Amino acid sequence: MPDDLHALSPLDALRAILGPAGLLTAPEDLAPYLSDWRGLYTGEAMALLRPASTEEVSACVALCAKHGIAIIPQGGNTSMVGGATPESRPGQVILSLARMNRVREVDALDMTMTVEAGLVLTRAQEVAAEHGCLFPLSLGAEGSAMIGGLLSTNAGGNTTVRYGNARELMLGLEVVLPDGGIIHGLRRLRKDNTGYALRHLFVGAEGTLGIITAAVLRLFPAPRETVTALCAVPSEDAALSLFRRFRAADEGAVRAFEYMSGTGMGMVFATIEGTALPLSNPVNHYVLVDLTASREGAGLRTLAETVLEAALIEGEIEDAILAESEAQRASLWRLREEHPEAQKRTGANVKNDVSVPVSHVPEMIRRCSEALREMIPGSRPVPFGHLGDGNIHMNLVQPEGMEPSAFLARSHDIMDCVNAIVRDLGGSFSAEHGVGRLKTDMMEEWRGGAELAAMRAIKAALDPRGIMNPGKVLPGG
Amino acid sequence: MPDDLHALSPLDALRAILGPAGLLTAPEDLAPYLSDWRGLYTGEAMALLRPASTEEVSACVALCAKHGIAIIPQGGNTSMVGGATPESRPGQVILSLARMNRVREVDALDMTMTVEAGLVLTRAQEVAAEHGCLFPLSLGAEGSAMIGGLLSTNAGGNTTVRYGNARELMLGLEVVLPDGGIIHGLRRLRKDNTGYALRHLFVGAEGTLGIITAAVLRLFPAPRETVTALCAVPSEDAALSLFRRFRAADEGAVRAFEYMSGTGMGMVFATIEGTALPLSNPVNHYVLVDLTASREGAGLRTLAETVLEAALIEGEIEDAILAESEAQRASLWRLREEHPEAQKRTGANVKNDVSVPVSHVPEMIRRCSEALREMIPGSRPVPFGHLGDGNIHMNLVQPEGMEPSAFLARSHDIMDCVNAIVRDLGGSFSAEHGVGRLKTDMMEEWRGGAELAAMRAIKAALDPRGIMNPGKVLPGG
Repeated sequence: MPDDLHALSPLDALRAILGPAGLLTAPEDLAPYLSDWRGLYTGEAMALLRPASTEEVSACVALCAKHGIAIIPQGGNTSMVGGATPESRPGQVILSLARMNRVREVDALDMTMTVEAGLVLTRAQEVAAEHGCLFPLSLGAEGSAMIGGLLSTNAGGNTTVRYGNARELMLGLEVVLPDGGIIHGLRRLRKDNTGYALRHLFVGAEGTLGIITAAVLRLFPAPRETVTALCAVPSEDAALSLFRRFRAADEGAVRAFEYMSGTGMGMVFATIEGTALPLSNPVNHYVLVDLTASREGAGLRTLAETVLEAALIEGEIEDAILAESEAQRASLWRLREEHPEAQKRTGANVKNDVSVPVSHVPEMIRRCSEALREMIPGSRPVPFGHLGDGNIHMNLVQPEGMEPSAFLARSHDIMDCVNAIVRDLGGSFSAEHGVGRLKTDMMEEWRGGAELAAMRAIKAALDPRGIMNPGKVLPGG
Repeated sequence: MPDDLHALSPLDALRAILGPAGLLTAPEDLAPYLSDWRGLYTGEAMALLRPASTEEVSACVALCAKHGIAIIPQGGNTSMVGGATPESRPGQVILSLARMNRVREVDALDMTMTVEAGLVLTRAQEVAAEHGCLFPLSLGAEGSAMIGGLLSTNAGGNTTVRYGNARELMLGLEVVLPDGGIIHGLRRLRKDNTGYALRHLFVGAEGTLGIITAAVLRLFPAPRETVTALCAVPSEDAALSLFRRFRAADEGAVRAFEYMSGTGMGMVFATIEGTALPLSNPVNHYVLVDLTASREGAGLRTLAETVLEAALIEGEIEDAILAESEAQRASLWRLREEHPEAQKRTGANVKNDVSVPVSHVPEMIRRCSEALREMIPGSRPVPFGHLGDGNIHMNLVQPEGMEPSAFLARSHDIMDCVNAIVRDLGGSFSAEHGVGRLKTDMMEEWRGGAELAAMRAIKAALDPRGIMNPGKVLPGG
């Protein structure tokens, strides 16, 4: 990298850095980075920066800071809320972390793993498994999503109920600040109270305060037993009671507890090849539960059978199947994981990633479903997701025969309708997807006053020129 | 509270607020608030504010902000590092949270509890237990320490290995900012990604960024089984191996895993009435392990016996005793909990609350003990504490017959000696006690550069007049 960068013009200086680092300039090469995978957002950028080391990230950021060039950090570009794609404004660049994908260290005794921001989640899971450990974060986009983005958005997914969000799986961070300074915080410590917890500020900041370049992740002993059950339940309340029953039986064993509606399951069977209901009769409510234990001979199958038997007697379940093999387990999970694709194939749909206190999930599902059906007759509510942590994807699929664009024109009405009920129940308008571009206009109403003022003060303090991921998280940012 | 406060002089305005709220002015009443319990720090304050509600805290802070009066927030005043006592400078007040001690809400189904900052930890534990739940935070000062201070210092204690620090037990916070603004963040949500995680910034900030007035805490199912074992082990390495053996047997069951040296145990037996070694022969290294499970019939005793038998065969333990009753369990734990008192009774001592990656604990103990003995011949290293999370109290007791003041004059040499080794092993100079006044001069060396600059920028952004707990955490703050 040349030493006299600061003497060059902005674009020449960028070229001097980016040339050797693999700059892509042809518009056709930049295209995949300019739009999100849902096709909701497209913006512009004058270049793509592809640094391969922390020092290169630092040099890129310092140069951009000097010239007031805005930076959009990008990992696997799997954001649900347009958090990783540029807006349409001039003088900005995308900085991809994809080349920073090394595993720097795995310590199977300490149960920690130090990895770079560009490592794909499935690869992180594999590396942990190769060392006899578990990295428990698990979600739909895991084949593309990268560690830096997962931390920057505090990703959740299926295992939050047992292991917490991405935040709880992180011990230390390396971060490049908006002035190019580097925070060397890759500490492998369970306890470290030495000043403000900066790492927790960057987790969930969606790249607006700096760029996470590497992280120390927590590992866990690999499970020795796994039991998976699909249950047909008579109501949303019964689903909640069943969760409590499993939690009371063995709090630490509940790895995942997912709710699915009969509507959503019907869409899966109708649109996804090779899927079918493995129970006798279709019902309106289903639960998928995963139990795991690291203890040998934990007897989870007996535990599950005991719990399900008691639930059957109490009328909390109508039918259930326990997976008899890894293949059957995968096919049960496929019913859950194909929900987004099935909705997409069924028609235009609007996603609501909301959360409420766990006890309010049944009421939230009922009230939102009724209100949405009333608002758009014939529309199909498809609530599904993480009942065990209170996070339900309260999605709505268009009525049959309606013009998709006419339905999507109601997107904000639909979100407002759901959000009003969620707010009434003490919930949040974004549980695990973050704010990105999609939800910045909700921040004032939900987080306004002292809270938003403090966020703005922190943003101004760490990024006074506003060059880090502009337009994301903060309204008017 | 009068409406025209802003027309009064600072002290008159304070009197107007504080009079009705129970201001103490007589110096003899203020005295207990001016010094820490260790007697290391004494400062001054012109008044003690005792607000009983969030609104009163807000009014007090707004008034102080207007007049540039510095505020020292104080809970149970159990800081080990002088974090809750005032410095000797004029124009400042202590704000006690002791009157804000209500339990606002307990939800045993959602497993959350909303409490005010002045609630004492043992009371929080009791309230959780009354609802059939567990609030797992547990540490020596639990009979005095208050929730606000425990969160402000991100307290650790014995159960971090299983449940995490105070940070991980917190879902939401209510905070009064340095301008008197209130963050209403008492959300009872497991997932909520809506902007910067401000709550994590106030946890561990030691009252320098605002005052935590209330918190939503996580609860857990009460354990149905508890097994406690005291083990004599041949070396520090054997203690670590035993930890790994228990963790591999059942990761979720290890509630606490504490190391104690023969030296420290000897001091307990010699100075604490009613204590004795419940094993055949004294050795140089001991481990106290607690296993718990919320599952009925978890069979933890069998598990413990199996693990200990295997460890005996491998030479990792020399002897062990399993508690046969709650009384015996308490007496085993007493041997651990009396360590600080026994050291105090033995002579002057210097405390080092340090952490390293768990795998480095044996090397840290050995190297520090040797270096300290060499530095001060006859001095007695007393390492003890939380091996399972890498946090050892690497304390040093004076040589017999040495003048205590002469020994204490070496305090900084002793800390420097330990810290150099800890740093070499990738550790931290403050694991769970925080920075307070004692360790601000270590911040520049350990967290200097971009990290400390970012902390300073955040402090300046949220507390531009520097009125919140001056002199704590940040050097020169």
